[in-house]
Amino acid sequence: MSGVGLSRVVEPVGVLPQAAWRLDASPVLGADEVRVRVERLNLDAASFRQLREKHGGDGAAVRAEVLQIVGTRGKMHNPVTGSGGMLIGVVDEVGPASPLEVKPGDRVATLVSLTLTPLVITDALRGWDGLSEQVPADGHAILFGRSAVAVLPEDLAPELALAVFDVCGAPALTDRVVRGYDAPDVTVLGGAGKSGSLALAAAKRAGARTTAVVVSESERDALARAGVADRIAIADARDAVAMTDVIENQADVTVVCVDVPGCEHGAILATKDKGTVIFFSMATSFAAAALGAEGLAADVTMLVGNGFVPGHAAFAVEVLRSAPGVRALFEARVSAD
Amino acid sequence: MSGVGLSRVVEPVGVLPQAAWRLDASPVLGADEVRVRVERLNLDAASFRQLREKHGGDGAAVRAEVLQIVGTRGKMHNPVTGSGGMLIGVVDEVGPASPLEVKPGDRVATLVSLTLTPLVITDALRGWDGLSEQVPADGHAILFGRSAVAVLPEDLAPELALAVFDVCGAPALTDRVVRGYDAPDVTVLGGAGKSGSLALAAAKRAGARTTAVVVSESERDALARAGVADRIAIADARDAVAMTDVIENQADVTVVCVDVPGCEHGAILATKDKGTVIFFSMATSFAAAALGAEGLAADVTMLVGNGFVPGHAAFAVEVLRSAPGVRALFEARVSAD
Repeated sequence: MSGVGLSRVVEPVGVLPQAAWRLDASPVLGADEVRVRVERLNLDAASFRQLREKHGGDGAAVRAEVLQIVGTRGKMHNPVTGSGGMLIGVVDEVGPASPLEVKPGDRVATLVSLTLTPLVITDALRGWDGLSEQVPADGHAILFGRSAVAVLPEDLAPELALAVFDVCGAPALTDRVVRGYDAPDVTVLGGAGKSGSLALAAAKRAGARTTAVVVSESERDALARAGVADRIAIADARDAVAMTDVIENQADVTVVCVDVPGCEHGAILATKDKGTVIFFSMATSFAAAALGAEGLAADVTMLVGNGFVPGHAAFAVEVLRSAPGVRALFEARVSAD
Repeated sequence: MSGVGLSRVVEPVGVLPQAAWRLDASPVLGADEVRVRVERLNLDAASFRQLREKHGGDGAAVRAEVLQIVGTRGKMHNPVTGSGGMLIGVVDEVGPASPLEVKPGDRVATLVSLTLTPLVITDALRGWDGLSEQVPADGHAILFGRSAVAVLPEDLAPELALAVFDVCGAPALTDRVVRGYDAPDVTVLGGAGKSGSLALAAAKRAGARTTAVVVSESERDALARAGVADRIAIADARDAVAMTDVIENQADVTVVCVDVPGCEHGAILATKDKGTVIFFSMATSFAAAALGAEGLAADVTMLVGNGFVPGHAAFAVEVLRSAPGVRALFEARVSAD
């Protein structure tokens, strides 16, 4: 249980930092902790929307509430949405027993949620108008031994790097699973999105024949230019029967990156016996997956898409660099945001 | 897509049988189908409770509604709860292309839900008072090529066999995962329940050192007599910090059989790096598992507990026969129901 930040929990005592109401955000480091000088917070979209709507778009009031939350809780943990976000900053001090691969001066992004990251704001957020999720900020944050953090690559714009880090578990886990099969067929549902296109690129690098399922002709055309899908089919992944018709062949590995509910049965039917389904979509229903496979007597391994794989951030950046077409997809998406 | 019963779907066309409003329950078999002469339906507990409460405990009205549902939908699929149940019967005819390992005269239990099983009732349920989930019935049901079915073992009472079949995916998948590790430590959360005790017995047979987490002293004492847990700890599996304190050592494989929400983080923390968590509890939150592992930077494989593994029913019966203490736990539970 070391490295998870239990010593930072003020109340209630004995829970994990994410479950805590209040954290101790003191700048004095424990042996395995790291202090980061904060440059910018990226608020979670759901959290920012709630705050903006609550205050009718009054940026000053939104800013005041963010300051009040951080001041009260010792972390930016929206008590209504339960969500946080991430931050960018520069490593200030590294405890002697920290296992994190960072050194003072590294510009980093945190890959763990702000809901469990001790945080102090010292500039009253004067550089922020309260009207966007991007919050310029000065202050400090604490990382634990088991926190995940990534050094920002110098050849990528920070926005692009953050977009890649946001989904970096998908290519890493896809790579690991695909390498467990011999020259497999891999199908990615939602192949034109961020996690989907990186998963396709990772599968292709690992020697797979790749099929993407997308929902529209415009997605198909965009993905075709990226060059990571050997076949692209247009179908609604929620319609199990129609989708499996267009895919033609079952896959050894099916990767679900479609962020809408109801894709579990289609994913199971799209997968061979002894195959694996990796669910990355947060819209996945545990019960629908478990009961679906049972009802279809499908001997498939179903994985909860763990967003953490050691080295996942660096691996995702490497995949992006090696797939210029996917990088172009990401850049188009980031500039549209 | 063969073997899933698409030809039995009447409306809406093009969906899977479970999603259909109405099935064709004609007794004439397709080449890969099997017809079963029905002896008894076991209604799902949630479905029966809803019907009983709706009709204020009037058994005749409950019976009339079950007949009406089956007559209208061609399956016992409660439109309010969305649930079904299972059935016991005798195999009547086996289509020439059926892959199921049954022959005419076999007494079987269906392991797929009644919500996708074509069904005709011919005795107006005259033998049922409408006051229990056990419904003596005459009629026929249809199994598809990909249906799961188990022959009832002659040495087990039908109620005991059904209780074992109900959780038979747990020991089978536990066995498969445990054999992927060398002399592993296995922790089962909720070890005193049906799926938990069979999972422990399966792990022990596969050469694991087993730890059980149970919630009370009475559960501990009952499980100790079963002889399948090398260590038994008492803790609330929802309290991640307290639970990992009492477990002492992390496991290679953690099996979650506790049917309450909020056990995801504890299960992840209870597991070594490169270990596996198998979630069998239907109370598992997909998002809590995915985000929990990410927030804890835990490199664990997380499996959705697929209730289907080839041969799972026979394997569970074999595990039960070889663990008399577990059989006694089951018999006590069945006689208490």
